Amino acid sequence: MSSTLCENAIAVGRAVQEDRLWSNLMEMAKIGARDDGGVNRQALSLEDREARALLISWARERGYAVAVDPAANLFIRRGGDGDPVLIGSHMDSQPAGGRFDGIYGVLAAFETLVAMDDANISTQRPVELVAWTNEEGGRFAAGCTGSISWAGVKSLDSFLDVVGADGVTMRDALEETIDATPDIDRRTLGGAAHAYVEPHIEQGPVLEARGLQIAAVTSIQGLRWYRVEVTGEAGHAGTSPMEGRKDAIQGALRAIVALNELMLDPTDTVRFTVGRMEIEPNSPNTIPSKVSFTIDFRHPDEAVLEERAGQIAKIVAAATTPCSATVTQTSASKPGVFPEHLVGLIEGAAQGLDLGVMRLPSGAFHDALFVSQACPSGMIFIPCVKGISHHPSEYSSPEDCAAGARVLAACAAQLALEG
Amino acid sequence: MSSTLCENAIAVGRAVQEDRLWSNLMEMAKIGARDDGGVNRQALSLEDREARALLISWARERGYAVAVDPAANLFIRRGGDGDPVLIGSHMDSQPAGGRFDGIYGVLAAFETLVAMDDANISTQRPVELVAWTNEEGGRFAAGCTGSISWAGVKSLDSFLDVVGADGVTMRDALEETIDATPDIDRRTLGGAAHAYVEPHIEQGPVLEARGLQIAAVTSIQGLRWYRVEVTGEAGHAGTSPMEGRKDAIQGALRAIVALNELMLDPTDTVRFTVGRMEIEPNSPNTIPSKVSFTIDFRHPDEAVLEERAGQIAKIVAAATTPCSATVTQTSASKPGVFPEHLVGLIEGAAQGLDLGVMRLPSGAFHDALFVSQACPSGMIFIPCVKGISHHPSEYSSPEDCAAGARVLAACAAQLALEG
Repeated sequence: MSSTLCENAIAVGRAVQEDRLWSNLMEMAKIGARDDGGVNRQALSLEDREARALLISWARERGYAVAVDPAANLFIRRGGDGDPVLIGSHMDSQPAGGRFDGIYGVLAAFETLVAMDDANISTQRPVELVAWTNEEGGRFAAGCTGSISWAGVKSLDSFLDVVGADGVTMRDALEETIDATPDIDRRTLGGAAHAYVEPHIEQGPVLEARGLQIAAVTSIQGLRWYRVEVTGEAGHAGTSPMEGRKDAIQGALRAIVALNELMLDPTDTVRFTVGRMEIEPNSPNTIPSKVSFTIDFRHPDEAVLEERAGQIAKIVAAATTPCSATVTQTSASKPGVFPEHLVGLIEGAAQGLDLGVMRLPSGAFHDALFVSQACPSGMIFIPCVKGISHHPSEYSSPEDCAAGARVLAACAAQLALEG
Repeated sequence: MSSTLCENAIAVGRAVQEDRLWSNLMEMAKIGARDDGGVNRQALSLEDREARALLISWARERGYAVAVDPAANLFIRRGGDGDPVLIGSHMDSQPAGGRFDGIYGVLAAFETLVAMDDANISTQRPVELVAWTNEEGGRFAAGCTGSISWAGVKSLDSFLDVVGADGVTMRDALEETIDATPDIDRRTLGGAAHAYVEPHIEQGPVLEARGLQIAAVTSIQGLRWYRVEVTGEAGHAGTSPMEGRKDAIQGALRAIVALNELMLDPTDTVRFTVGRMEIEPNSPNTIPSKVSFTIDFRHPDEAVLEERAGQIAKIVAAATTPCSATVTQTSASKPGVFPEHLVGLIEGAAQGLDLGVMRLPSGAFHDALFVSQACPSGMIFIPCVKGISHHPSEYSSPEDCAAGARVLAACAAQLALEG
């Protein structure tokens, strides 16, 4: 059920300036700009440091307090003491990334702080922008290291020896990045927060298709990854009778057909993808002796994940006969469910601002999945064209960017104003 | 219908000596022997020349006439003038080949000549062993160059500029090989033959499974090769609803399922294989945007090939919707049907020698496919363990090798004795 926000909170939302936000987004997109219109601003790189420096300079102009923690998470605070209302996202991009993924949430958060100034509002709780380090995991393979270590899901130490694509360890890259901003406060990792709200582009096609500007994100899907290996028997394509063949491609194909059946869902909530497939010997006139394929299975409900995932091995074994098959789980994460009071708040803010809104689970991971283990968290999605992300052509319109920032500003104000 | 062979022909078959044939096979297998028990004796290589020299030395001991043509096809003749009965196969192997593919047919032919000596028989027509050059195509990519150019299917000139894996042209390799045997007769390419009979290992599992020693080969299957490209649309595995996806793996899978239906054959004569598949971007959490796969389709009857192949494009288009697909033919050859008088002769020879025999089409290509365009041709298959060939573990027993040589010797004698 959606909340009704106070007048002051809605006023802060209305104080968001579309042009200012867009101008900041375009200014930031110059850092690491690619010739194809995209952005290459990988975690803890020179470009990441340059982006941080620019944001810090904007914060200074406004008189906000700036701090960094040992995970190089960057904090920009407006207002006094106590557990802050955290708002933000991440600044790093994929190597061939776009201009919105991550950075949009950070700049919407910055616009929120400024809108509070413009609305001339004082809040009981501080509102604090956070830019989490290395969400993408493009340079350092473990993603979300900033939010994971802040929330205590894993220790920062467990990431320090990760070696980047360029041979640099995360330990050294963190040190270099933190040392690049010697004049800001240092703080320890972690700490309490009243709530966390993260705006982000949807990275899917639903909002655009429905003609809505806002999604109140209900949850982040849980995930199971598997690697299936089907072993058959090689043979000459011309001389081996069909009867008696152990064709590993045909075995894999029967397995996928059977898994398609298992994953059927009239509500279209299940996500089931076979994205990778490898064939041996992969020769046109040889019966394949081995085929491996991946399963990416997601659902917002852990019980559904458990129930269907539990049938995969048996179904694969039956379908691949007379080939043999092994099924190995390569990754698993439980769904993150966002608390109703924040989902309802985001929904209510959109309604109060006359913006079209729906509830939507998130198919992709986000820092909020991990932050939600330390404090109540929520997410706001805005549309992105054709659902494209992690690509130079990623795009959200100035109007949609402003709509998301308005909802964020109203929510942050409401959370910071309330007792 | 099987022929009844004359007593003299059967006597020549019975004169074949299992030990002598096996000893020659094992002696020849030392040339190019691999550590894993296989043979690497590629066309026109030093090993090929060494093998030729050994065979020529054996021929000299027996007093047979030896000749070579411009395609380096090697001929060993027993008996007088007139159109010869040609018997043989090829001496070259795959780089990781076995001890029987090709060379077995050549040494069974040599054993035939010797058995005729032992049986003290004079034939009206000469019997001539032939070892065709470069059947495998392992070093020089076009295979069967010796038999193709001898039969006039293509000119030898069309192969001369082919460059081997080692950078040597076929022109130079032919010259070196011919020059390595300066003391044997040179003859021109081509010429008439009364008939051609080629013994070979089956390279399939049928004879072993049926417990038979001999197949009278009825035909060599025709072939159609296609490359199918299915184009879908990439997307995030977590965020893209199942409804509306254009998943190229799922499209390719539906196409293969539909093609399996098309290729159903209760007689198990059709051969249909998808041996190669390539996926883009081949990432576990991205919906595949492009999948290509190969079709290898064979049948002994050109009408069946035409009829089913004609439906492939339409079936693929329907099955891959909403993806799009293209189907490109990459290779095609018509079936070669062996004349009944030779199939029946081989069958009759096996029966006359009390050997279990069946009729069988050949799934693989052989020199006989091309020779059959110049003179009546036939083939004799013997079992090979598990149907394995083109592999170091390729094996046929001494008993089976002798059985095939007996049938060849009896057939050659019958053909050479008759008017």
